Amino acid sequence: MLSHNQIKLIRSLKQKKSRQSHRLFVVEGLKSIEEFSHSNYLIKEIYTVDANIADKLGGFLISTKQMSQISFLKTPNVVLALVEIPLPEKFKENGLLLALDDVSDPGNLGTIIRLCDWFGVAHLICSENTVDCYNEKVVQASMGSLTRVQVHYLDLAEFIKQYNGKVFGAFMDGEVIYKQTLPENALVIMGNEGQGISEHIEQLVQEKVCIPQFGSDKPVESLNVATATAIILNEFRRSVY
Amino acid sequence: MLSHNQIKLIRSLKQKKSRQSHRLFVVEGLKSIEEFSHSNYLIKEIYTVDANIADKLGGFLISTKQMSQISFLKTPNVVLALVEIPLPEKFKENGLLLALDDVSDPGNLGTIIRLCDWFGVAHLICSENTVDCYNEKVVQASMGSLTRVQVHYLDLAEFIKQYNGKVFGAFMDGEVIYKQTLPENALVIMGNEGQGISEHIEQLVQEKVCIPQFGSDKPVESLNVATATAIILNEFRRSVY
Repeated sequence: MLSHNQIKLIRSLKQKKSRQSHRLFVVEGLKSIEEFSHSNYLIKEIYTVDANIADKLGGFLISTKQMSQISFLKTPNVVLALVEIPLPEKFKENGLLLALDDVSDPGNLGTIIRLCDWFGVAHLICSENTVDCYNEKVVQASMGSLTRVQVHYLDLAEFIKQYNGKVFGAFMDGEVIYKQTLPENALVIMGNEGQGISEHIEQLVQEKVCIPQFGSDKPVESLNVATATAIILNEFRRSVY
Repeated sequence: MLSHNQIKLIRSLKQKKSRQSHRLFVVEGLKSIEEFSHSNYLIKEIYTVDANIADKLGGFLISTKQMSQISFLKTPNVVLALVEIPLPEKFKENGLLLALDDVSDPGNLGTIIRLCDWFGVAHLICSENTVDCYNEKVVQASMGSLTRVQVHYLDLAEFIKQYNGKVFGAFMDGEVIYKQTLPENALVIMGNEGQGISEHIEQLVQEKVCIPQFGSDKPVESLNVATATAIILNEFRRSVY
């Protein structure tokens, strides 16, 4: 039921290049696959070691050994799906938008996609060097939220230049966010884990904001980008609650 | 410079039981070790593959092969330290206190310790079943913040019963936190990743709070406990800023 070529194809989907050329990515676990199957995503194939799941979802029954050959997890799940990567779509730039300037950690991107889902941010803009949202670790960490948040990879500087609303960016030396007027329509930019927001993007930011540090005078390096995103999205939402 | 018995001892420190009987834990990486050496923690031994570091910090020079035998990291760092676990201390229960009810993921605890450091929460109370803060993954994720935040393992129910301030807890069905009066002296309880706050602790909570969900009507499972902690600590701090 699973040819050598299919195994080779699935394993190749760990690489972004292969995902892009085949327009396919891997989703593992029943709960996530069900979320994708109830969304606009198109499921191309399902492989499972569980006959009930094979029946229910119309998947191929494979052996545990075969599953361990195609799974990207240390402890393979009982079911794995190949899902089609959608074509880029135009989107409306109203409401609250979040943009990432070269975020590189898959776990951070996955957490940020979950946060967008929680806070009702429908569109996440990613600079072209931001980690791919169809990377298996991002899919895993986003826990199905990828089905409800549209992720757009594009030239971030060009996007900002043509954007009509106010542009906010998170900086260590920004104005305390509690004191800012945070509008309903806004673009919020979060930077890379080590470098923060890059210089050419910084020049396009209208309002620099920061989350103040409390207590201890010894400096904490900085908040993790996903944690900082959680606080900043909460600030925007609470201000219009 | 590194006997078979020493290697065996260090490797055993992956287990909580061994850490507790030896009152020792492992810290890896120059930056973290320097933070521990400038804190109240006592460094017992330093092992490094770098002669300059050995000179500077007074450590033992070992081979790369030996480092790979004692390191807990996939890619060993150049320096590893054995640090003494401090004895439990009494502490003042004023200001903002955070308590964890059986948080089990080391990465989450590490992130929460960093958050306490950022938001000036000097004492973190952990139920006895919360993951050990000297677990190497917690030490790694807390990035030195463990040197500035005191973590106390104790009977959480007993602690709450004798606590004098107001007791808040995070629940999916709590009151929206934006609308609450959040005092400067308070105890905030966060629950386990899967189960939330346990029933016997819930009965001791005076104010149930939640972070509201926005947008999409399809429910997001819940916010990750570290992310929710970030938002809730920020809410307490902003209210007295």
